[in-house]
Amino acid sequence: MCYNFSKMEDIMSTTVGIIDLGSNSIRLTLMQTGADGSYKLLDEIKETARIGENMGPERVIKPPAVERAVRTVRLLHRFSRANNVDTMFGVATAAVRSAVNGVQVLETIKNETGLSFRILSGREEARYAYLGVANTLDIKDGLVVDIGGGSTELILCRDRKMVCWASLPYGAVNLTENHLSAPGSGTGGLERLESCLCSAWRELSWLESARGLELLGVGGTMRSLGRIDRKQINYSLNILHGYFLPSGRVNAICGLLRDMPVEQRKHIPGLSKERADIILAGAAAVSALLAFTGSPGIRISGSGVREGVFFEHFHGGGPGPVVDDVAGQSVQNFMSLYRVRRQHALQVAKLSLSLFDQLVSIHGYGSWERRLLGFAALLHDTGNVVSNFAHNKHTLYILLNARLDGLSHRETVLVALIAACHGKIELKPLLQQYGDILEPGDDILVRRLGILVKMAENLDRSESGVVEELVCSIGEKEVLMKCKTRDDAGLEIRELYKNVTNFNKVYGKRFRFPKEDV
Amino acid sequence: MCYNFSKMEDIMSTTVGIIDLGSNSIRLTLMQTGADGSYKLLDEIKETARIGENMGPERVIKPPAVERAVRTVRLLHRFSRANNVDTMFGVATAAVRSAVNGVQVLETIKNETGLSFRILSGREEARYAYLGVANTLDIKDGLVVDIGGGSTELILCRDRKMVCWASLPYGAVNLTENHLSAPGSGTGGLERLESCLCSAWRELSWLESARGLELLGVGGTMRSLGRIDRKQINYSLNILHGYFLPSGRVNAICGLLRDMPVEQRKHIPGLSKERADIILAGAAAVSALLAFTGSPGIRISGSGVREGVFFEHFHGGGPGPVVDDVAGQSVQNFMSLYRVRRQHALQVAKLSLSLFDQLVSIHGYGSWERRLLGFAALLHDTGNVVSNFAHNKHTLYILLNARLDGLSHRETVLVALIAACHGKIELKPLLQQYGDILEPGDDILVRRLGILVKMAENLDRSESGVVEELVCSIGEKEVLMKCKTRDDAGLEIRELYKNVTNFNKVYGKRFRFPKEDV
Repeated sequence: MCYNFSKMEDIMSTTVGIIDLGSNSIRLTLMQTGADGSYKLLDEIKETARIGENMGPERVIKPPAVERAVRTVRLLHRFSRANNVDTMFGVATAAVRSAVNGVQVLETIKNETGLSFRILSGREEARYAYLGVANTLDIKDGLVVDIGGGSTELILCRDRKMVCWASLPYGAVNLTENHLSAPGSGTGGLERLESCLCSAWRELSWLESARGLELLGVGGTMRSLGRIDRKQINYSLNILHGYFLPSGRVNAICGLLRDMPVEQRKHIPGLSKERADIILAGAAAVSALLAFTGSPGIRISGSGVREGVFFEHFHGGGPGPVVDDVAGQSVQNFMSLYRVRRQHALQVAKLSLSLFDQLVSIHGYGSWERRLLGFAALLHDTGNVVSNFAHNKHTLYILLNARLDGLSHRETVLVALIAACHGKIELKPLLQQYGDILEPGDDILVRRLGILVKMAENLDRSESGVVEELVCSIGEKEVLMKCKTRDDAGLEIRELYKNVTNFNKVYGKRFRFPKEDV
Repeated sequence: MCYNFSKMEDIMSTTVGIIDLGSNSIRLTLMQTGADGSYKLLDEIKETARIGENMGPERVIKPPAVERAVRTVRLLHRFSRANNVDTMFGVATAAVRSAVNGVQVLETIKNETGLSFRILSGREEARYAYLGVANTLDIKDGLVVDIGGGSTELILCRDRKMVCWASLPYGAVNLTENHLSAPGSGTGGLERLESCLCSAWRELSWLESARGLELLGVGGTMRSLGRIDRKQINYSLNILHGYFLPSGRVNAICGLLRDMPVEQRKHIPGLSKERADIILAGAAAVSALLAFTGSPGIRISGSGVREGVFFEHFHGGGPGPVVDDVAGQSVQNFMSLYRVRRQHALQVAKLSLSLFDQLVSIHGYGSWERRLLGFAALLHDTGNVVSNFAHNKHTLYILLNARLDGLSHRETVLVALIAACHGKIELKPLLQQYGDILEPGDDILVRRLGILVKMAENLDRSESGVVEELVCSIGEKEVLMKCKTRDDAGLEIRELYKNVTNFNKVYGKRFRFPKEDV
């Protein structure tokens, strides 16, 4: 009898494909959902098919664009079949929605490829963008802005809820065609583009109430702006989702793009060649919106409409389409994806949080720090998926590179560093490396919380939950730690003495266990 | 119905525990074997219990040592149970074998902990060390040297086979006690140690035929020497297994240790505090053996007796206890462990090897390079286990950090870099970073083979094996590539044109597909 894990995993899991037939690009996202409630991005593939190109005032998707769409969808369909997709969602957005021949084009695509698409209304498109954002970023109030090729959706969030929305027929492709590349558009194009957008925004009476809120940027234009900025400032973290781009820097990028011919733009680090022609219109729209709303800047979301479609499906049977605790859910998901031994992780979390609570008079930290410690403890062994040897360093790598949703970048770096502290690690160069993200005092925070994870890990070295309870008495010069154990924990405590050597340095007191326990 | 992947994996897999009751330390290795033929190190745990300490000329394991052994075995047993070990192998080596009360001590341990141990004969210990090495390093001829706490095993390998062996009752613990720490051992201790060992070696007539061979170093002493040296030269790769330590550097480390009191040794980077007292005896023994055999140096093996016990069990039903193609087997194992989509990996390997063969007149590479290319192609997607986004960089990380057996460190770095080339990567800083391992010409080798993996990956972008055959015609200025396809591969070829932009630079010719294919 010979099983194959990957095959078994396939059998017990479901692969969901979502194709977004957009005005600029056609994209497929494959998500795998496990029967244990986990989910992960399996793969993504995109093709800049530009079906919204040259639609003209007659609003007709032209035959070459249809041909490109058919070939692309065929490729994506083949890719989906090769990856054993169980459920496929096809959605079509602005170009198809606004075209007079949209329905016919979808019929052609269906006849040629076998895949059917649902045209999203402006409201639906806005809602899916919102679902993509609200399930992956810890937003409370903000203005979600999804700039596509043929439309822009604006969604006002209050207390994580979608309270107002709009879908405007202006995207990076048609704004470029109408204002920046048409014969005779001349130098006044940008001004006309901005004034056209401002008039549209002025008609949205509710937009006034978004004044001063952070923008939550969705779509290729937004991601490109984020990538360009990250390259410019040599940003230390390799994650785009959650990246914050202040207004001033958007304006600077916009100025840079304005003064460059398209050919030259193709060499801007962070910008793809295929977007070089339409990025200026997108950037100008963002810049104008920031000014219009008086917003401090944009937080880039790597998740949008496709992820929204996925989450609606995923949470279908559950508590509703928006999860309450994004970070908590993401941590649980990571524990499944990286096959963390749950019992041990829970025990390390329990013991380190118990230490945290009992040492509060020394460190003075509060609920924010406590939450980060809990996450770090639960995830401290994720690195085992790479290799057991030096796995604390692999944990660091995973947490700094895989996207833990619902945390700010600073929180991500803190959780990664605290989790890595359970094994040997040189903190100093890492604290320097992420100095652009960390804040004053974060070094001592990492050392203080890191040592708690390390102590808890050592106290559960046998992974059998031998220590049931820890009681600390804080004296003038030392912390006396008593264990209630279910078995002899002498070796665990000796391991702890051996491995935890700088408690005194970070807490200003020595720790000690009663002699008879060692 | 709710499955749990980790649980299902547990059900479909077996966890094997191997405890080695050695003179210096007691170590447990947990290996997980999958029903798909894969295996991985789950965890390791050790405790320096020193049961061989103070045995004295009466060769009795003393009560404090028995007490330490019982407590340690109890911890390891608890750890094993927490990890659901299915099969446990306990082996006892030199200290127990040579002690007059060895059998009683094992009985005590069994009564107190429930775990039973088998005493290995010198021949068995030698054979397991050999099995550990031969299954994880691509050795042909060499002298395996396993220095333990209470004995040293020497095994001559010819053509990967164990042809001669010896087990000598000298290890780092008893050599220290007998020559270096006894009252009045004075300054002549090292000379006496060496002369004692040399007399023993001279009695092994077959050892003469090992003259000039590489030593394959097993055990804690060897690993420590490797770690100290790596720290001293700031070695770039974070893998110990397969690390080569030239004779001259062993002598230098030995000199360093000789001139230092034990307390000071505890601060040598790479050396654990617990080994500081016995490392000099071990290092002196290695240094003397290198001189005795005229060997160029030691290749450190991270695998030894415990892994040998595992491989005997693992290959039990298979082709015999030593695998022929260590690297090939390890690559297959990685494909299972990191859940590579096998069909796509095989297609990328097929296409890149086909390109390699057809371009041989341009690159002039041979079977060694071809083999590395094949491995890189099969492993190019391992990084997906971390995250799909930028997964080529995660592939690089995994291949540089997880232990791909049977490859030299140079080969490991080459395979990792070639595999990473299928996505965006800045090669220059990486080639510099691993400059201490790479050789002249390796930069162009990486670029040339990397681009083949990238082309093959692009030609299978839909992962559906659409390209059945590739035929290249090499002209003066260009390479014309024709595809035999089972479907429209136009988008794949366009992806290839878009992503592969420096073929001309590394091969001195442009590539082109027939217009009608694009």
